[in-house]
Amino acid sequence: MNITIAQLNYHIGNFEYNKIIICNAIEKARADGSELVIFSELCIPGYPPLDLLDRIDFIEKCNAAVSEIAEFCKGITAIVGSPVFNTYPEGKKLYNSALVLSEGKILFRTNKALLSARDTFDEYRYFEPGTNSSIFSFKGIKIALTIGEDLRDVQPFDNEFEKSGYPMDDPASYNPDMIINISASPFSHTRIESRKKIFTSKAARHGIPVVTVNQTGANTELIFDGASLIINGEGKIYHQLPYFEEMVFSFSLDDLAAWKNPSPEIRHDPLSLIRKALVTGIRDYFRKTGVKKCIAGLSGGIDSVVVLCLAREALGPENVKALLLPSRYSSDHSVSDSIELAHNLGIGYEIISIEKAFSSFLETLEPYFRNCKPDVTEENIQARIRAILLMAFANKFGAILLNTSNKSEAAVGYGTLYGDMAGGIAVIGDVYKTDVYRLAREINREREIIPEKIITKPPSAELRPDQLDTDSLPEYDILDSILYQYIDLNKPADGIVLENYDRSVVDKVLRLVNYNEYKRHQAPPVLRISSKAFGDGRKMPIVAKY
Amino acid sequence: MNITIAQLNYHIGNFEYNKIIICNAIEKARADGSELVIFSELCIPGYPPLDLLDRIDFIEKCNAAVSEIAEFCKGITAIVGSPVFNTYPEGKKLYNSALVLSEGKILFRTNKALLSARDTFDEYRYFEPGTNSSIFSFKGIKIALTIGEDLRDVQPFDNEFEKSGYPMDDPASYNPDMIINISASPFSHTRIESRKKIFTSKAARHGIPVVTVNQTGANTELIFDGASLIINGEGKIYHQLPYFEEMVFSFSLDDLAAWKNPSPEIRHDPLSLIRKALVTGIRDYFRKTGVKKCIAGLSGGIDSVVVLCLAREALGPENVKALLLPSRYSSDHSVSDSIELAHNLGIGYEIISIEKAFSSFLETLEPYFRNCKPDVTEENIQARIRAILLMAFANKFGAILLNTSNKSEAAVGYGTLYGDMAGGIAVIGDVYKTDVYRLAREINREREIIPEKIITKPPSAELRPDQLDTDSLPEYDILDSILYQYIDLNKPADGIVLENYDRSVVDKVLRLVNYNEYKRHQAPPVLRISSKAFGDGRKMPIVAKY
Repeated sequence: MNITIAQLNYHIGNFEYNKIIICNAIEKARADGSELVIFSELCIPGYPPLDLLDRIDFIEKCNAAVSEIAEFCKGITAIVGSPVFNTYPEGKKLYNSALVLSEGKILFRTNKALLSARDTFDEYRYFEPGTNSSIFSFKGIKIALTIGEDLRDVQPFDNEFEKSGYPMDDPASYNPDMIINISASPFSHTRIESRKKIFTSKAARHGIPVVTVNQTGANTELIFDGASLIINGEGKIYHQLPYFEEMVFSFSLDDLAAWKNPSPEIRHDPLSLIRKALVTGIRDYFRKTGVKKCIAGLSGGIDSVVVLCLAREALGPENVKALLLPSRYSSDHSVSDSIELAHNLGIGYEIISIEKAFSSFLETLEPYFRNCKPDVTEENIQARIRAILLMAFANKFGAILLNTSNKSEAAVGYGTLYGDMAGGIAVIGDVYKTDVYRLAREINREREIIPEKIITKPPSAELRPDQLDTDSLPEYDILDSILYQYIDLNKPADGIVLENYDRSVVDKVLRLVNYNEYKRHQAPPVLRISSKAFGDGRKMPIVAKY
Repeated sequence: MNITIAQLNYHIGNFEYNKIIICNAIEKARADGSELVIFSELCIPGYPPLDLLDRIDFIEKCNAAVSEIAEFCKGITAIVGSPVFNTYPEGKKLYNSALVLSEGKILFRTNKALLSARDTFDEYRYFEPGTNSSIFSFKGIKIALTIGEDLRDVQPFDNEFEKSGYPMDDPASYNPDMIINISASPFSHTRIESRKKIFTSKAARHGIPVVTVNQTGANTELIFDGASLIINGEGKIYHQLPYFEEMVFSFSLDDLAAWKNPSPEIRHDPLSLIRKALVTGIRDYFRKTGVKKCIAGLSGGIDSVVVLCLAREALGPENVKALLLPSRYSSDHSVSDSIELAHNLGIGYEIISIEKAFSSFLETLEPYFRNCKPDVTEENIQARIRAILLMAFANKFGAILLNTSNKSEAAVGYGTLYGDMAGGIAVIGDVYKTDVYRLAREINREREIIPEKIITKPPSAELRPDQLDTDSLPEYDILDSILYQYIDLNKPADGIVLENYDRSVVDKVLRLVNYNEYKRHQAPPVLRISSKAFGDGRKMPIVAKY
C-alpha cells in the first residue's frame, strides 16, 4: 500500500487557501497511487487558531471545509485535523480531532486526549480532552491515530521541575500495524534531536512503524519546522521531510518494511536551522499579512546587520530598505560600516541625521529640564526620534518596521520602549547576543557578507559619548549564561551562583529581568527559536515583587 | 461559634507583606473571639502568580510562609490558599489548594477540581485538578471547603456558545452544615448580580449556609472587587463585605441561623462600581510598582479628561501632572477647556507646543516625501511627538505615563502605535466611548468637575484641519453596539446585521477590528471592568485572514 504525507504551510482562518493546498496534495497522492494521505493537526483552520475557536461561525466554516474535502476524496482516503463540536451537554465546547475522510463521509474520528497547556499552548481553553479509541482499521491494516502530545509519554522538558502529562491509554497496547501522529510542533533549537527520539524510541519499544506529519511555515511568532518522519518498526528513520519546507511525499509500506530505498539521514547544525527558522518567520509574516516591503534602522551594530541579512534572504533585496540615522554621538564607523553592509546586500538605504529633531526636542524641553542633569531621558529621546522616522517611512511607503532587539537586551531592559523596541515583528528577539554573533559567522560561512570589523568591534548603543554596553552590563558571555539559566531553565538565584557566578552580578541581572516585565509586555511579537521565548509563552505578573 | 472572613489586598510574590496582613487578620479574629478565620484563594503568593509558579524557589517560599502562618495560629484555625507540590509522579506539578491550619499543623487540605481556562485564566498550565474530598469536620461542624469555580456548576457566561465545566462531585451532596468558597474573582460590570446569584441559589437549593471570601485590590489589569458574602440556608444575604475595600469581618453562626443583626443589602449602580474599579486599578498599579507620580496628555477631549479625574481620585492631585500639547491643528477650546479642567482638579499642568518638533520632522523628511501627499503619516508623527514629550517628563521626573485610549478606538485601531497608544497602563481601555461619557456624568454627579462643554462637544483627534471622529467612524452609539456584539459576545457578522445594522457598516467595523490585532498586541495592559477586555484575556492570531 502507498501512503502520502503532506507537510504544508497553512494560513490561519484562510479556508479557501487551506482547502486548495489540501486538495492539491490529495490530487498528487492519487497520482502517486496512494490510498491514504495524511495532513497535520488542525490543518483545516491552520494552527494556532487561538480565540477564533470561540466563534461559532469559525467552527461552522471548519465543518464546511471538512465536508468539501471529504467529497473531494474520491478513490482515496485522507486524514485531516479540525475542531469538532462537543455535542455532550457538559465539558468544553470543542474537541481537537483527527478525521478520516473518504467518498464524502467521515469514516472515523479520534479526539486529542493529552492537551497542551505549556508555553504558548493553552488547549484547555477550548478543547475537551478526548477519551475515545484511536484505533481504526483501514484496508486490513490496524492503525493507531494520535494527535500531538498523545504519542509523547516522555516529554522533552528543559526544566526538571516539569513533569510529563497523564500516561494515556497507550495506543501501542492495541498492537496496531502502524502508528500515525499528526501534530503542529514548533521549532526549538534545543529540542531537535530529543523530539526525533520520542518517535524513534516509541517505534523501537513497541516494534511498530511510526509516521509523523507536522506542519511547516510560520504564524506570527510560531515557526513550524516540518521535518515529518517515517520510522520503521526498529526505530530507524526511513525518510525525513525537509526542515521549513512544504513537501508532499509518497512511500510504500512494503518498501518501508523491506528497508528498500531509505533516504540518507538529514543532519543540520543548529545554527543553520536557526537561520532557516528566522528567514521562514520573516517571509511568512509578510506573505500572510500581505505586505511586501520591510524597513529597519541600520546602526552598524551586529544586531541590525544580522536582521537586515535575514530580511534580504526572506524578502529579496528590492523589498528591504535600511535607514541610517546617525546622531551627534554616532561614531564614523557606524555609518561607513552600514553603507558597506548595504552595498554587500544590494539593498536601498538613506542616511538621515536625527540632529535637527533632537535639537528641537532639547530646545522645547529646556525650560522644564534646565535644572536637571542629562540622564537616560535624553538617550531615550534619540531612540524615539529614530522610531518616528522609521515609522514615517513605513507608513508613507506601506512597509513594516523590523525590530532588531536581541534576547539579552530584551531580558535586561537595555532598550527604549517606543524607540528601538518598536516594530511589527522582533526578528532576533529570541536570540541571545552571543548567538547573534554566531549567526553572523553562519551568514558569512560561504562568503563575507558582513564585514569582519562589524563582528569584532565592541557593542555600543552610541546614545552618549564613548558609551559601551559593558558600562552597564556584564560581558555578554557571562550575561547570556545567567539569563539562560534564569529564563530558559527557571533556575533559582542560588543555583546560578553555584555555577561559579558572582552573587552580586547574578542578583543585578535577575533584578533587571524582573523589573523590566512592563517593557516586554509592549514589545512586538518575537520569532521563536527556543523553548522559552519572551512573549505569549512567558506570562509574568508586572506588579509582582519577586 | 464565631467565624471571621478576611477580604484582603495581596501583593504577588511579596511574601513578607502578605504574611503581615494575614497575621494581622488572624490577630483581629482572635480578638473578636473567632475560632475560624478564612482567607481567599492563593492568598499566600497573591493572585495571579502566573509563571512565577514555574519556579521551584517560589513554591518553596509559599511553603515556608504557610508553615509560619500555621505556627501563628495558636488557639485559632485559619483557612488559606496556596500552591502545593503534587508528589504523585505524573500529572501537573502543582495543586491549587485550600489549607486548614492550626497550632503549627496543616489539619486538612483540598485541591481545586474545576480549574479555570477562560479569558485571562489558564490554570491547567500549572495545576493538576483535585479529586480528593472537600469535606472536613471542625469542632462538630461539617464544612464543605471549595475553591473558585468548584462551587459554580452554573457559570455566568455572556456567550451562549460557552458551556459549563464538568459537574463536579457536588459537595452539597454530603449534607455539610456549611459551605465555604474561597476565590480570586475579578470584577466585571456585567456580572455583578449573576455572580451573587450563583451563591445564593446554591445555598437555597440545598438549604445550607454559604460563606464566600474573595480578594480585593488590583494586580496590573485584574481588579478584584471583594464583595465577599455570608448567606443563610434560605439563600438570603446576611452580610456582604464592601466592594474594592479590605475588611476583616467577624460574625456568629448562631446569629446567622437566627437572622439576628443582618446588614442592609449593598446596592451600587454599575457606573459607580466601574469608577471605583478604575480608581482601585490605578492606585494599586502605582502602589505595587512603588511609583507615586503619574503624567498624562490632556487634549481637552473626554477621554483624557476622564482619565485625569480618575487619576486624581486614585493618587491625589499632588501626584498628577497634565501636559497640554497643542499643534497647528488644535482648536482654541482644546487648550482653554483643558486649563479649566486642570484648575477644577487642582493638578499641575504645562502647555508645550509640539510645533517646533513637528516642523523639524517635516523638514527632515521633506527630501524623501516631497512627491507624496500628506496622509496618516503626518498625523502619526504628531501623536508620536506627544509620546516623546510625555515619556521625557515621565523619565526625567520618575512618573508613569497613563494611557487614555478607550475601548472603541482600541477596537478599530483609531490610535497611533508609539503615539497615543503609549503608557504604562490603559486606564479606560476597557470602557467603550459611550460609557466614557456616562462615566463623565457619574464623575459630575455631585458637583461639576468636568466642564459641561467638554462632554457635549463633538469628539475629534485634531490631527488635521476640522477633523471629526465621525469622518472615518460611524456614530459612537452604533459603533459601540456593533463592537460589543462582536467582541464581548462573539456574535457572527450575520447575527449583528440581523439586529438592524447596515451590512456595509458592520463589515467595515469588523474588518477594522480584525486588521488591528497587531496594534493591540503592543498596547499597554488594560484595566479590566468587563468580561472581555483587550489584552491577555483575548488571544487573536495576528497573521490570520478572517
